[in-house]
Amino acid sequence: MSTDAPTPTGPTVRRTATTLADGRDLFYFDDSEPYVSGQATRRLDDPRPLPGRYDPIVTTGPDGAETTQPVTGPTMRYDVLTGEWVPHAAHRMNRTHLPPADANPLAPARPGAAYSDGEIPAEDYDVVVFENRFPSLMRVPGTTDEVTHLDGEELWQVRPAVGRCEVICFSPDSTQSLSTVGTRRMRTIIEAWADRTSELSAVEGIEQVFCFENRGQEIGVTLHHPHGQIYAYPYLTPKTEVMLRQARAHRERTGRNLLRDVLDAELRAGRRVVLESEHWVAYVPAAARWPIEIHLAPRRDVADLPALTDEERADLADVYLDLLGRMDRFFPPAEDGTPTRAPYIAAWHQAPVGEGRDDLRLHLQLFSILRAPGKLKYLAGSESGMGAWISDTTPERIADRLVQLGAGTEES
Amino acid sequence: MSTDAPTPTGPTVRRTATTLADGRDLFYFDDSEPYVSGQATRRLDDPRPLPGRYDPIVTTGPDGAETTQPVTGPTMRYDVLTGEWVPHAAHRMNRTHLPPADANPLAPARPGAAYSDGEIPAEDYDVVVFENRFPSLMRVPGTTDEVTHLDGEELWQVRPAVGRCEVICFSPDSTQSLSTVGTRRMRTIIEAWADRTSELSAVEGIEQVFCFENRGQEIGVTLHHPHGQIYAYPYLTPKTEVMLRQARAHRERTGRNLLRDVLDAELRAGRRVVLESEHWVAYVPAAARWPIEIHLAPRRDVADLPALTDEERADLADVYLDLLGRMDRFFPPAEDGTPTRAPYIAAWHQAPVGEGRDDLRLHLQLFSILRAPGKLKYLAGSESGMGAWISDTTPERIADRLVQLGAGTEES
Repeated sequence: MSTDAPTPTGPTVRRTATTLADGRDLFYFDDSEPYVSGQATRRLDDPRPLPGRYDPIVTTGPDGAETTQPVTGPTMRYDVLTGEWVPHAAHRMNRTHLPPADANPLAPARPGAAYSDGEIPAEDYDVVVFENRFPSLMRVPGTTDEVTHLDGEELWQVRPAVGRCEVICFSPDSTQSLSTVGTRRMRTIIEAWADRTSELSAVEGIEQVFCFENRGQEIGVTLHHPHGQIYAYPYLTPKTEVMLRQARAHRERTGRNLLRDVLDAELRAGRRVVLESEHWVAYVPAAARWPIEIHLAPRRDVADLPALTDEERADLADVYLDLLGRMDRFFPPAEDGTPTRAPYIAAWHQAPVGEGRDDLRLHLQLFSILRAPGKLKYLAGSESGMGAWISDTTPERIADRLVQLGAGTEES
Repeated sequence: MSTDAPTPTGPTVRRTATTLADGRDLFYFDDSEPYVSGQATRRLDDPRPLPGRYDPIVTTGPDGAETTQPVTGPTMRYDVLTGEWVPHAAHRMNRTHLPPADANPLAPARPGAAYSDGEIPAEDYDVVVFENRFPSLMRVPGTTDEVTHLDGEELWQVRPAVGRCEVICFSPDSTQSLSTVGTRRMRTIIEAWADRTSELSAVEGIEQVFCFENRGQEIGVTLHHPHGQIYAYPYLTPKTEVMLRQARAHRERTGRNLLRDVLDAELRAGRRVVLESEHWVAYVPAAARWPIEIHLAPRRDVADLPALTDEERADLADVYLDLLGRMDRFFPPAEDGTPTRAPYIAAWHQAPVGEGRDDLRLHLQLFSILRAPGKLKYLAGSESGMGAWISDTTPERIADRLVQLGAGTEES
């Protein structure tokens, strides 16, 4: 285990890099004096007796004999029908010391406890990022990126899924949600996203970095602690591939950037613009497919989060919280007053690491699968079978509701 | 309302075409003497006082004044970021006479009742197909297919969504599922699918016909009556587009058909073959992405269901029921013995109507989102945001389980 010297990132955030007991990276991003996790007096080391994540797996048989197997990373196969890589995450890993089922692995360590069931050794933190313990994308040291062929068939390419999966905790407080962390903490989260994007973009084999949040049990989130994820893919995702293809065709035809032209057209039309700030514009896209869908784009042409200026980041913190607040209030509360917070997926589209830096443009796609309280949009035959989305509403209706919520009123 | 003379389809099926009170088409496919719905002594006419589906909508205001508005069909917008058409189904329709919420609109009419709450006027049927009352794809007579531009912006193309949505009832008995209807009824359903595919393929503006079934409330199915759907799209779906692109690239490179080569490779490898019959082969594809996934392909190169021979159809009836049975038994029953029937989507991929007839090849993609009893695979950030699937299992594990179930045992 090692602890780097804290290094400043941005105006108010202190970054402290360390490693967990099994060798995974962990990064604290502290925004308040005294920098809680960066203090030498606080415990940083992970006290758990975890085996190294790349150590061979030793199992003892019924006869007491030990067998040793190497850890293997996830692999991915090329789906020749669609041209997509599909990681299969059923790899062999050291899975001893699983936390109890009712534990919150994202909470800070209990003060004074000699031992932690969670993933975070520090007894307090502001924002923390660490490698997922059971990642679907991972490079086991010594893995080559060589393509092999399943069953000796030329059609079926297989490669190690050498990406990386990280978890980001937005707050030490399990009762918060990202919409309630406040501007200062949001600003720190943006620093953390930008930092991770820069660092992961430089990792060998990574083609794309994706910062996202799944919020709500309706989309399968089981941990209520406010957190998001960062995936570094060793391939271009299908959505990015298709957007790149569209952007290139548009540039060939017009000489212009597609996402810039879309933003300009939304501003000209005005009909679906949800909010405008000095540096950002949020709108419901003209062909929105989800029951709620918002795109948030910077006014300036920017490829990814690290390319944002301090002013753009500060502005983004306010705008992002504003939009998440509207998500929280989109549906009227239940009869007993309980808020109906829309579950959502917040997906940061960034330009890929290599090609296409000029064709894709940073933007957030924030969307919900909730059509009405208790009513989900299911991705059934048309969507899951044919990729053909059908919307039950119109982009203009969604925009009207979101604009109405700007005043903070909760009328429906 | 009109009733065509019954016409024979296939060796044992009698097809009777009629229309519902609001003008929608309905087709009975009867397979047993006396052909229950084709008999003149049985009621075929729909007794409901439905307004014509294309009649102007008359509303009475608070002052008693009537206003008349034309019915408008659904429109679709071109999503310039992805190149996909997205129908927005929030069109104006005549929605008087809604059935009670607890009614089963797919049940046969109650014998002797003067009036039906359901969609099917006959007091009995074998298999019936009718136009969906609230379709997301529909041609309102007089609609042109002209492309217009939203907000006057060249980027945002809009077109009428002039397709068609049909419902197919697999049995008059609400307690059945498709897996339990028996070989003879399954054969009739195949006739119905083939008939609808032929007829809808000839409709102006239709580019692709999709027969599918969503089974299970986990994917949003609210009606338990065994039924499926048939969509006729006025565009190539994204999945078909991408498969066509892959198939064409493969043909340019090798001179061969991609789906034929995939089938041959699966047969050579043998590792993921689930079953083989005289005319059909079922396998778990090498890059399966769903927790359960089976592809079923004919041995002969066939573009769509209408192109199947009688022998291939008869064989398909047996094979299809066998596969659905394995889906039903894939997970062990609950402790109290209740079966854990896997929810599934059954998606028939057929060659498009126009281009690509030689490149795409008929096959079924049958898949489930259930990872384990009570555990769904959610389509969250990576899947819904980036289109990047990640599987928690391996194709070989899925195949092993499906092969094991072939003997009808329920061991896990």
